[in-house]
Amino acid sequence: MDQHDGGWKRIQSKYLFESRWYSLRQDVVLLPDGTPITYTMVDHPGYVMVVPVLDDGSVILERVFRYPLQTTVLECPSGGLDGEPPEQAAKRELEEETGWVAGLTTLLGCFYGSSGMSNERFHVVLAQSLEPTGTLAREPTEQMEIEQMPLDAAVELARTGQIPDGPSALALIVAHARLGSSR
Amino acid sequence: MDQHDGGWKRIQSKYLFESRWYSLRQDVVLLPDGTPITYTMVDHPGYVMVVPVLDDGSVILERVFRYPLQTTVLECPSGGLDGEPPEQAAKRELEEETGWVAGLTTLLGCFYGSSGMSNERFHVVLAQSLEPTGTLAREPTEQMEIEQMPLDAAVELARTGQIPDGPSALALIVAHARLGSSR
Repeated sequence: MDQHDGGWKRIQSKYLFESRWYSLRQDVVLLPDGTPITYTMVDHPGYVMVVPVLDDGSVILERVFRYPLQTTVLECPSGGLDGEPPEQAAKRELEEETGWVAGLTTLLGCFYGSSGMSNERFHVVLAQSLEPTGTLAREPTEQMEIEQMPLDAAVELARTGQIPDGPSALALIVAHARLGSSR
Repeated sequence: MDQHDGGWKRIQSKYLFESRWYSLRQDVVLLPDGTPITYTMVDHPGYVMVVPVLDDGSVILERVFRYPLQTTVLECPSGGLDGEPPEQAAKRELEEETGWVAGLTTLLGCFYGSSGMSNERFHVVLAQSLEPTGTLAREPTEQMEIEQMPLDAAVELARTGQIPDGPSALALIVAHARLGSSR
C-alpha cells in the first residue's frame, strides 16, 4: 500500500462549486479492495489565525458576526491566504482588521480544521512588537469589535471550553505555551 | 440591529449539494446597509471528538488515512452525529472504531470548526471506565490503527503544535484540563 494515498485511487474528479474562498470537489475513488465510492470534499487554500500579544501581556481579539452561525463569536483575528506566506498574511489581516502593525511575527504551527471533509488548514502566527496605526480597512462583511484581555485569562477560557471558536481556542493555547517556554 | 442575525437578511436560499454528511447552501443576503451579497456555506450536522482515557492515564488515539489530506493523521476517535446526543454518539463511535466500551462519558464543550465557512461544530466528550470488547465495526473507508500514549505526553504534543489535527489537539487539551482540576 502506498503510504501517501492510503491505496485509494482517484479515477474521476469534478468541481461542483468554485469561488475565491473555497471549492467543492467530487471524486470517484477506488478503495484498496477495488470498491468504487464517491467522495466530496471542500478544497480550501488555507488561512491564518493570528495571536497578537501586546507588551503588557494582553491579547487582541475580535467579536465578529459569523453568518453561518447566525451569531457573534469571540475569535482571534484571521484571514485567507492570498498566495502569500502565513506571516505576511498575518501582518496584513491584523492591520486591516484591527489597526495594529506587528513588528515581529512567528509561525507556531499548522493544523487541519476538518480532516474528513476538507484539506482546510490554519496557520497559527504569534504577532508581537505591536504598534497602533489607528486606521482600518475592513470589508463590508467584516462586522466586528475589538476586545482586549490578558492572554492568561483567554487561555484559561480556552482550556475550559469557553472560547467557542475551536481554531481560536487552540491558537491561544499554542501561543501561550510558546511564550511560557521562552520566558 | 438584531443581536442574532447581525442585521443580515436572507432573501434567497438554495442547496448546491446535499449528502448524508453535509450540504452546500448558497444564500442571497442583504447586508445591514442593504447591499446584496451571495454567501455560500457548508451546512453540517456536527460531530463528536472523543477523548478515551484509560485508568492508567493513557489515551486511545487513531492513526487514520484522510482522503482530503492524502495522508495519515493521528486523531482522537470521532464521528458524525446521527440525530443522537453527543455522549451516545461518542460511545457508539468509540466502540465501532476501537473496540472499547465507555462506562462513563462527560460532555466537556462544543466548538465551531470553521466559523466563516460552516456551522460545523464538534462536541468534545471525555470517555472513561473503558472496557475492551475486542470487536470492531468499521466502515470500508475507515482505515486506521490504534495508538496509545500517556495523555500527558499527547497534551504536550498538542500544546506545541505537534498534533496536526486541530480539533483532536484541542479536545486533548480540554480533557486534560478537566481531569487535572478534578484530581
